Amino acid sequence: MDLAEFLNKNNNKEIVVVQGLGFVGAVMSLVVSNSKKKDYVVIGVDRKESIEIIRNINNGIFPIKSSDPKIEEYYQNSIKKGNLLATYDVSAYSYASVIIVDINLDVQKNSDSKGNLNSFNVDLNPFKNAIRTIGQNCKEDVLILVETTVPPGTCMKVVKPIIEDELTKRQLSSDKIKIGHSYERVMPGPEYINSIKNFYRVYSGIDENSAVETERFLKTIISTKEYPLTRLVNTNATEMAKVLENSYRAMNIAFAVEWSRYAEEAGVNLYEIVNAIRMRPTHSNLMYPGIGVGGYCLTKDPLLASWAKINHFDSKDSLEQSEKGVKINDKMPHYAFEFMKRVFVLDSMVNKKILLLGVSYRSDVGDTRYSPVEPFYLNCIDNKAIVEIHDPYVQHWEEVNMMVSQDLNEKLNMSWDIIVFSTAHSEYKNPKVILKISRMSNVNVLDTLGILNEKDILELNKNNKVKVLGRGDI
Amino acid sequence: MDLAEFLNKNNNKEIVVVQGLGFVGAVMSLVVSNSKKKDYVVIGVDRKESIEIIRNINNGIFPIKSSDPKIEEYYQNSIKKGNLLATYDVSAYSYASVIIVDINLDVQKNSDSKGNLNSFNVDLNPFKNAIRTIGQNCKEDVLILVETTVPPGTCMKVVKPIIEDELTKRQLSSDKIKIGHSYERVMPGPEYINSIKNFYRVYSGIDENSAVETERFLKTIISTKEYPLTRLVNTNATEMAKVLENSYRAMNIAFAVEWSRYAEEAGVNLYEIVNAIRMRPTHSNLMYPGIGVGGYCLTKDPLLASWAKINHFDSKDSLEQSEKGVKINDKMPHYAFEFMKRVFVLDSMVNKKILLLGVSYRSDVGDTRYSPVEPFYLNCIDNKAIVEIHDPYVQHWEEVNMMVSQDLNEKLNMSWDIIVFSTAHSEYKNPKVILKISRMSNVNVLDTLGILNEKDILELNKNNKVKVLGRGDI
Repeated sequence: MDLAEFLNKNNNKEIVVVQGLGFVGAVMSLVVSNSKKKDYVVIGVDRKESIEIIRNINNGIFPIKSSDPKIEEYYQNSIKKGNLLATYDVSAYSYASVIIVDINLDVQKNSDSKGNLNSFNVDLNPFKNAIRTIGQNCKEDVLILVETTVPPGTCMKVVKPIIEDELTKRQLSSDKIKIGHSYERVMPGPEYINSIKNFYRVYSGIDENSAVETERFLKTIISTKEYPLTRLVNTNATEMAKVLENSYRAMNIAFAVEWSRYAEEAGVNLYEIVNAIRMRPTHSNLMYPGIGVGGYCLTKDPLLASWAKINHFDSKDSLEQSEKGVKINDKMPHYAFEFMKRVFVLDSMVNKKILLLGVSYRSDVGDTRYSPVEPFYLNCIDNKAIVEIHDPYVQHWEEVNMMVSQDLNEKLNMSWDIIVFSTAHSEYKNPKVILKISRMSNVNVLDTLGILNEKDILELNKNNKVKVLGRGDI
Repeated sequence: MDLAEFLNKNNNKEIVVVQGLGFVGAVMSLVVSNSKKKDYVVIGVDRKESIEIIRNINNGIFPIKSSDPKIEEYYQNSIKKGNLLATYDVSAYSYASVIIVDINLDVQKNSDSKGNLNSFNVDLNPFKNAIRTIGQNCKEDVLILVETTVPPGTCMKVVKPIIEDELTKRQLSSDKIKIGHSYERVMPGPEYINSIKNFYRVYSGIDENSAVETERFLKTIISTKEYPLTRLVNTNATEMAKVLENSYRAMNIAFAVEWSRYAEEAGVNLYEIVNAIRMRPTHSNLMYPGIGVGGYCLTKDPLLASWAKINHFDSKDSLEQSEKGVKINDKMPHYAFEFMKRVFVLDSMVNKKILLLGVSYRSDVGDTRYSPVEPFYLNCIDNKAIVEIHDPYVQHWEEVNMMVSQDLNEKLNMSWDIIVFSTAHSEYKNPKVILKISRMSNVNVLDTLGILNEKDILELNKNNKVKVLGRGDI
C-alpha cells in the first residue's frame, strides 16, 4: 500500500509520524497506533537504506524480536486496524499533527585496541539533516516531539532554528511551531511495551504552548494516572535529566567494575559485600560486577553530556567523573579477557576452543548494540582462538556479521577449552545446563556476570575449574 | 576515682575496654555500659594528650554535644550505675575480655590552596603503636574488635602479627587471641545512639572462633533481632565493605557536584531535575547539590581503599573512579567561593562583611571535622573579607580556633554584604529568619545547600539578590 492509498483509507483521523524505526521508534509506533484514548493513524518514516525494515513492517513481519508478547499482540492489532504504515516517503511529514523524533544521535569514539578511549566527537550533522527534512515538509503548527537523547541544549540551539529557518524559506509562519522534549525510558526485554506505556516521564517544551501540547499528546499514549508526568521548566532541563540519569547509571556500573578487580586482588567475594551493603536504604542500588556496559545509551550518554557542556554552554570543564565512568566501562571486556587468560594460566590462546554463552548486552533480550561481548570476542579472535557463540535471542550477530547458534544442547555436546557465561540469559540458569557442563572434563568455566550460585560452583568445580569476575574467593 | 578503686567497686563483671574516646568510641562506651542484655563494666582509654576528655567523662561532663537526647540520658545512667571510667592508664587493657578499637586512622593529603589533591599518603604508625599497646597488656584470649575504618587487609596484615608478636614476647600463647572486625555506621546527630544500637552491622573474624565471639558480643549491645547481623567470610571482606560503602557515597556526592556546575552553566535547576529522576526506583538515591563533603569518613575512605589496593594487595592500579570522587569533592568549597564572587560580581572581597550560617558539615549536628565550610571560610579570609560565623551547635570552631556565635538574632541585626547558608541547620529554615534577611537592603544571599524554597527565594529577591548552588535558573 502506498502513502496516498493509506491516507485515503484512514482519512479524518489525526496523523502521527514517527521518525526513525529503531528500537525506540518502531515500538513507539505500536504504542501510538494502539492508543485507546485517541484513534491515531501512525506513519513510521525511516531512510531508504532501511527499506528492509520498512517492507517488513508493511508485510506482517515486525522487525524487533522480543520476549515481550505484547509487541506481537500490539503489532497484530495495528495490522487489523490498518492504521500503521512504514515508508521512506518524506512527504508523510506534511500530513502529521505530531512528529515524534526517534532517530539516533551517535558519539564517535576513538579508542585503541585495548579499549582506551583516547578522544571522542559528536557529529550533529545526521541529526540536523533529519530535522531539516521535517522542516522542509511539516505543517507550520505541527508538534515536534523530540525523544532522541540529545546533547543538552539541542532543542533550543539546533532543532528550533532549523525548523524556523525551513518554515521561513517556505514562506510559512514560524510562530505556530511547537517543539517538545520528552525522553523515553525504553527497556528492550519482557517489559518492552510497559517501559513506554506504563512508566514515569519527564517533559518540557520550548515555550508554554509547546509544553501544553506535549502534555496533551503524552496523556493519550501513556498511563499518566498511575505514572504522573513531571514537567520541567525548559528543554535544557529535560535534555539534561536524560543524560544525567544515564550517566549516573554508567558511573555506578564503573564503580562495580573498579571494585570487582579489587575484590579479585584481595581474595574476597564482591557479590557478598554488595549484598551486605545493600541492606542500607541509601545504598540499595549498588550494582553487581559484570563484563561491562552495553547498549545504545550508557556507552555514550555521559559523553554527549560532556560534549554539550563545552560546545553548547561554553564551559571550560568537561564532566570528568562521568567521562571516567565511560572509560572504565569501555576497558572492562578487555580486562575480562586478560582475567580469563591469567586465571586459567593460558600461555597461548591459539586454537583454544571457546564457547560464548550470550552476545546480547542484556539478559533475555536480543540486543547486541555495543555489547561488551564484542570486544571480548574480538580479543579472542585476535589471539587466534576458535570461538563459537550461542544466544537464544540472536540469530545473526550484526556487528561482527556472524551466525549465532540457538541450539544450546548441540553446543554443550561439543568439547571446549573454555565456556564463558557472557550474558545472564535465563536459559543458562538451568540446573541441567550446569550438570552437563560439570560432566565435561578439562573445561574452564568463566562466569562474567555472577549467574552461578554456590551450588553450581561446587558442582562445576568437581571436574573443572570455575572463575567468577568480582570473586577473589574462588 | 582511679582504675584500681573502680575495678574494686565493679568486680566480677565482664570488662570491656574501648580504645579511643572520639565521636565513635565515646558513644560506643555509653552503648556498651547501657547494655540491657549483659552487665558490662566499661573503661574508655585514650592518650594522655586527651586528658581533658578523660577528666570530663569522669567528672560528669560528656565530651560530645549532640541533638540526640539519648546521649545525655545514657551518660547519666552510666554515672548512676558507676560502670564507666575513662583513663589513659594502659594497664586497663589487661583486665578486658573485649577490647574495642575506635581510634583514628588518618590519610595525609597534600593539596594546594585551590583544593587540588596532588598526592596523599597513609601513615600506619600511629595505628600500629596503639595496637602494640594492646598487645603489650592484653590477656592472651581477649577479643579485639576493630571498629576503626582501616585500609582493607589491616586486621590480617597489621593487627594480627603485632598482637602475636607482643604476646610471644610476653611468653604467652598466640593461639587463643580473637580478632574481629565490625564497622559502625555512626551518624552524629539526632539519631546518634540509634545509629549504633539500632542499625545493620557487618562483621567477620580472622578465624572461626574470632567470628563467633564477635557475633556473641555484638548481640549483647545491638538490637540484632530487628537489625540482623551479616557475617562476611573474612576481615578483608568487611574492611573492604566499609570503605566501599563510603566511597560509593562520596562518588555520588561528587556526581552531584559535577552536575550542579553544569546546571548553573545551562541555566537549569538541578534540584528539579534530581526530583524528577528520583521517581525511578533505581535512581532514588541521587544526591542534591551542596557545598562539598565533610566529616571524617567520606573525605578519606576512598583514599584508604586505594592506598591498600596497592600497598596491601600489590595491585598496579589505584581506584581511579573513587579517587576522582574525593578530588571533585575537595575542590567544591573553593568553587563555591569562586561562584559567590562571580554571581555577586564582586571585583574585590576586601573588607566585605560576610556572615556564614553554619560550620558543621552536617545539619543539626556540631561536628566540624573536615567541614567544607573551612576551605570556603579560609578563601574569604585570604581575600581579606571580614567573616563572622553562627552555628547553634558549635561554640568554638576547633579547626580554625575561632569563637562561633549562637545568637542568630543578634547576627541578623547587624549589616552584611553577603549572608551564606553553609549548613542546613533546621534553625535557618524558619520563615522568620527569611523575613528578617529579606528586610535588609544590599545583602547578597548565597544558598549552598538548597535550603531555601521557592517562596523564600521570592521573598528574599524583593530587596536583594539570591543565588543557589546548582540552580542556573535564578
